[in-house]
Amino acid sequence: DSKLKIFSLNSNYPLAHEIAELMGVELGKSSVKHFSDGEVQISIEESIRGCDVFVVQSTSAPVNEHLMELLIMVDALKRASARTINVVIPYYGYARQDRKAKAREPITAKLVANLLETAGANRVIVLDLHAPQIQGFFDILIDHLVAVPILSDYFKTKDINPEDICIVSPDHGGVTRARKMAERLKAPIAIIDKRRPKPNVAEVMNIVGNVEGKVCILIDDIIDTAGTITIGANALMESGAKEVYACCSHPVLSGPAIERIENSAIKELIVTNTIQLSEEKRSPKIKQLSVAPLMAEAISRVYENKSVSTLFD
Amino acid sequence: DSKLKIFSLNSNYPLAHEIAELMGVELGKSSVKHFSDGEVQISIEESIRGCDVFVVQSTSAPVNEHLMELLIMVDALKRASARTINVVIPYYGYARQDRKAKAREPITAKLVANLLETAGANRVIVLDLHAPQIQGFFDILIDHLVAVPILSDYFKTKDINPEDICIVSPDHGGVTRARKMAERLKAPIAIIDKRRPKPNVAEVMNIVGNVEGKVCILIDDIIDTAGTITIGANALMESGAKEVYACCSHPVLSGPAIERIENSAIKELIVTNTIQLSEEKRSPKIKQLSVAPLMAEAISRVYENKSVSTLFD
Ligand SMILES: Nc1ncnc2c1ncn2[C@@H]1O[C@H](COP(=O)(O)O)[C@@H](O)[C@H]1O
Ligand SMILES: Nc1ncnc2c1ncn2[C@@H]1O[C@H](COP(=O)(O)O)[C@@H](O)[C@H]1O
Repeated sequence: DSKLKIFSLNSNYPLAHEIAELMGVELGKSSVKHFSDGEVQISIEESIRGCDVFVVQSTSAPVNEHLMELLIMVDALKRASARTINVVIPYYGYARQDRKAKAREPITAKLVANLLETAGANRVIVLDLHAPQIQGFFDILIDHLVAVPILSDYFKTKDINPEDICIVSPDHGGVTRARKMAERLKAPIAIIDKRRPKPNVAEVMNIVGNVEGKVCILIDDIIDTAGTITIGANALMESGAKEVYACCSHPVLSGPAIERIENSAIKELIVTNTIQLSEEKRSPKIKQLSVAPLMAEAISRVYENKSVSTLFD
Repeated sequence: DSKLKIFSLNSNYPLAHEIAELMGVELGKSSVKHFSDGEVQISIEESIRGCDVFVVQSTSAPVNEHLMELLIMVDALKRASARTINVVIPYYGYARQDRKAKAREPITAKLVANLLETAGANRVIVLDLHAPQIQGFFDILIDHLVAVPILSDYFKTKDINPEDICIVSPDHGGVTRARKMAERLKAPIAIIDKRRPKPNVAEVMNIVGNVEGKVCILIDDIIDTAGTITIGANALMESGAKEVYACCSHPVLSGPAIERIENSAIKELIVTNTIQLSEEKRSPKIKQLSVAPLMAEAISRVYENKSVSTLFD
């Protein structure tokens, strides 16, 4: 039987370490450094011949650096005779560039899928793609995990009366996700409906659903600059919500995000650790939950050739 | 007939601009910016449908950034119905990772070739690859230009008696290149022969050839940290050289390079503009020659479907 090996690159070593620990294996020995001119220098310091290799790397910022690390690592593993190369991408960067919204735009999410296949990846494990259709960008096997159960379970521990809860989607695109959380918490949903009455006139926030006196839980996949979510939270409070929590799978938190969150009506923001938070992205308002048990379970099942699909929602 | 378009990305706008000017065309309108989280955002601001497009981009530092810009641009051009996509890469990064020198190393120069093809490039124009064999890494057409004529012509203007000149290769790998320059300047060659008498004993510099009283011209393809070239220059002076010039195609000049060059016996370092020199990489000792006329000629010939091979040496 072939051996399991888990390698970490530079984007999220703590998560990879936790996954390996849960699975009772040591992380594979390797190092990713740079030559003097900034070129990536990868060295794999143990034999992986004939092994089933899993490489954990989020393509979070600096995205181009992290993506090239991953592609070069896959190339090295392929040339070192790995039996299978499975890339575990907890946060899949460039996912928002998944269609031509305007003329002459690239579809970078598809390009990245092609690049991974070209480098030699045999299988991909991802979590909460910005659009589930990105699964179809791959010709290799892809397993699509979801964080809704992890986020929902956290709110169950809070001991809030289910009748007081309302799950809120910050836009129309996120209703399916909100629906899934609502089912788990046996709560109703609401939707924030943004509308521009005339061109060049400020957007109007209209809340579809009853949030008065409710503990609102806003849910999104990515929180980036946090504009949508903080404006939404404030609108919910103005509409009579008792308090507002927010949660997401991927805490990108770029630019003014932290400041906006701290100054907003959001009581607590629950995120996962698909993206490692740098020192300046931490805040007393932000709580990070681990996806390591979910990832470890998915890796075990792939390695043992068992079905992963029960982890899909 | 199809129209010619030249686009520049962010690595070397001045070179692209000069090429376009020499060809009497305007650079295509486009912008490469970043979203708040650092992801590359490309927009092509004019129609290129049915055009023969040339994209000028060196994969110099930050190499991963510049490479991803190029791949995403090629994807966008392909989806915008370009007739042909020709990537002009004056400096091809990752070229030194062109073989497995140790176990489990990647061959990143080959990976990059595959990535460019996957993105949709139809043809590649490069200059002085670290190893000419990298041409064979591509399944698409590749034109390999050389800078030796440009560097040689500069020394012809110096009015040094050809009998006083000696062209020096800093190592065995560079002898062919030195030979080519020597033919153009009708001068003899010498080779710096590094040898380690025993393990853990300092290297000995042995100069093969007569350099006494000569104006030595060291030639290399890449000068990176400038260790080899400055130690070589000092060894030449110690062996009785009258003065030492150095030249190369690609001024990578990372880490201690500038300091080493300024403190060395090198009288003048002649480089080309395949890599744009940032403010801190300029030095009164460094003279930059333009490859724009050569690149413009190559682009014209490719566009007009004429032979490029007379530019190959
Ligand atoms: N990294 C990014 N940051 C912000 N916006 C992006 C990013 N990548 C793509 N986009 C844009 O976001 C839009 C897609 O977002 P969405 O409507 O939420 O799927 C597209 O119009 C993209 O141009
Ligand atoms: N960016 C780089 N900077 C320094 N050394 C490199 C770089 N890329 C590759 N190398 C190493 O340089 C060696 C090849 O250089 P060369 O012998 O001059 O062809 C290989 O052993 C590589 O591991």
